Amino acid sequence: MSKFVEDYEVFDLGEFELQSGAVIHGGKLAYKTFGELDADKSNAVVYPTWYSGFHWDNEWLIGDGMALDPAKYFIVIPNMLGNGLSSSPSNTPPPFDRARFPRVTFYDQVEAQHKLITEQWGIETLPLVTGWSMGAGQTYQWAVSYPDMVQRACPFCGSSKTSEHNFVFLEGVKAALTADAAFKQGWYDAPPVRGLRAAARVYAGWGFSQAFFWDQVYKRMGHSRRLGLDLAFPSLEDYLVWFWEGHFLDPRRDANDLLSMLWTWQYGDIGQTPGFDGDTVKALQSIKARLIALPAEKDLYFPPEDEQWASQHIPNGEVRVIPGVWGHFAGSGDSPVDLEYIDDVLKELLAS
Amino acid sequence: MSKFVEDYEVFDLGEFELQSGAVIHGGKLAYKTFGELDADKSNAVVYPTWYSGFHWDNEWLIGDGMALDPAKYFIVIPNMLGNGLSSSPSNTPPPFDRARFPRVTFYDQVEAQHKLITEQWGIETLPLVTGWSMGAGQTYQWAVSYPDMVQRACPFCGSSKTSEHNFVFLEGVKAALTADAAFKQGWYDAPPVRGLRAAARVYAGWGFSQAFFWDQVYKRMGHSRRLGLDLAFPSLEDYLVWFWEGHFLDPRRDANDLLSMLWTWQYGDIGQTPGFDGDTVKALQSIKARLIALPAEKDLYFPPEDEQWASQHIPNGEVRVIPGVWGHFAGSGDSPVDLEYIDDVLKELLAS
Repeated sequence: MSKFVEDYEVFDLGEFELQSGAVIHGGKLAYKTFGELDADKSNAVVYPTWYSGFHWDNEWLIGDGMALDPAKYFIVIPNMLGNGLSSSPSNTPPPFDRARFPRVTFYDQVEAQHKLITEQWGIETLPLVTGWSMGAGQTYQWAVSYPDMVQRACPFCGSSKTSEHNFVFLEGVKAALTADAAFKQGWYDAPPVRGLRAAARVYAGWGFSQAFFWDQVYKRMGHSRRLGLDLAFPSLEDYLVWFWEGHFLDPRRDANDLLSMLWTWQYGDIGQTPGFDGDTVKALQSIKARLIALPAEKDLYFPPEDEQWASQHIPNGEVRVIPGVWGHFAGSGDSPVDLEYIDDVLKELLAS
Repeated sequence: MSKFVEDYEVFDLGEFELQSGAVIHGGKLAYKTFGELDADKSNAVVYPTWYSGFHWDNEWLIGDGMALDPAKYFIVIPNMLGNGLSSSPSNTPPPFDRARFPRVTFYDQVEAQHKLITEQWGIETLPLVTGWSMGAGQTYQWAVSYPDMVQRACPFCGSSKTSEHNFVFLEGVKAALTADAAFKQGWYDAPPVRGLRAAARVYAGWGFSQAFFWDQVYKRMGHSRRLGLDLAFPSLEDYLVWFWEGHFLDPRRDANDLLSMLWTWQYGDIGQTPGFDGDTVKALQSIKARLIALPAEKDLYFPPEDEQWASQHIPNGEVRVIPGVWGHFAGSGDSPVDLEYIDDVLKELLAS
């Protein structure tokens, strides 16, 4: 019996060769769609998932009257390879399971998604690609891998190349998780609970801004459309355990899966797309989409500066900073105000 | 044989009762002095240590022609209780050793230092108290505990009350360290190396700013007056291992000591001084010293906002922001430019 509600479909990637030369044998891409593809196949939106997220964690940005309106668009949410639904350490049979699951790049993620989009539906144009965090990384990758296909792109709270500081932040998360001997270099039978909790506590300092804590916003976060819950925590400790440790300990998440995605994130760089020879600037210059990047004002690991740097090299690029104290989680779907900001930009972008 | 060079002296604190009611039996306060106390005992400067630091880590701010000139001032560097030189988990005999060492507040730290200053030398006035990070916390505490004694105060890269975000950052460091089963709840015989390395990696993301990494300043940090070395690392990984893991693995540091100081830091709040009943604002209002707080522009855990908030309540308080990308480590003594900024402010303050 699966630990997942089976509200999604699975595309067969077959023998899926990765950028490294490693192969995911019998690769699977789990996805969910909203709305209908129109007759000329011109209304598809790709909206990839984020670190530790599943397709349902993206649904908050989809709805009647919203930019991503299923009455207008055919919205595809592909689950990242490594997230536990698509091919991942936790669901791949031996010998490529767990610590032996191959490393997947953003380029590989988009190749898998492109296969789905073109082979399953014969789609050749995308009015929009958008996503949060690692979803933003995949958005950039789409715009570089398929410049003639992507008309518009809206990466929010992410970057085209993972900065060194961001890499170091992730080193901390990884070190905390793997400090637990129960992790057994990935060959655990029971989850390394202590390490997962430690990773969650490390993450907790980074996800939101200093000002979020100063204002004690966790005491009255408001309605999370992502979780379908009103979030309000009586104390800091309750917030740390429920929101953070609970997230990492959710049995649908897995330590090796989390480390697989973490690797993808750490080595994110559109300059590593074949043909660009590591030249990130050249890759940015090749983007043809109209691209609006939405960093959050106080994001601690994807600071606005990264996006401002990238934008100057994108011919039709623009940056708008999401204001407020939510930091990276401005784009999580937990923040009522930031949801509106992002939705408004997507509406404007789609109307252009 | 001691693992420390014995270039310091030790003051006997006797039966030293802490704010909690716990007692450090036969308490020791290790300190080092520079310069001579003048005849009227009016030239003493107290300059406490920081998290994981020892007295020699403070010496970079002392020198001929500098603000803290031993030709003019009698400079006392007291080692924090818990740092491994003063009474600490690692050097206290059973039964109060290791995981049983009592918890020490900033108030307790200053009580111990006040005992030294008054009983050893009969000093009743202090032209200046200054310190970095937790040293800044002790500086604030001095100004609140002994308002009539402290004439001037210059806390740099610290705060009067540890913010909740700062607390959460430290939760991450602590969780990483204690995720290592070798820590054995503090009853290890051999150091929990994996946990110490993990804690170091977590810390590495916080110590310097995002921009420090963006600019790859670690490749050419320049001369560290603190370490007496030119710091330049060929790669990010080399920097992480040498500067961070090396710091935490230094045999003079100890996991329980690090956790003891971490607790002091997490619960820092001058409002907890007896008589103020948890009212931090009232405690700030009671400060009589001329106080210039020096937060660093891009400090990730003591952001300038915290000091700006505090300053509005200090009758003779002022904030000046240390510019640049070094983040918290602007005040470490590793940064040649920031050293000059701090020294200049101290000169101005001492001249007033």
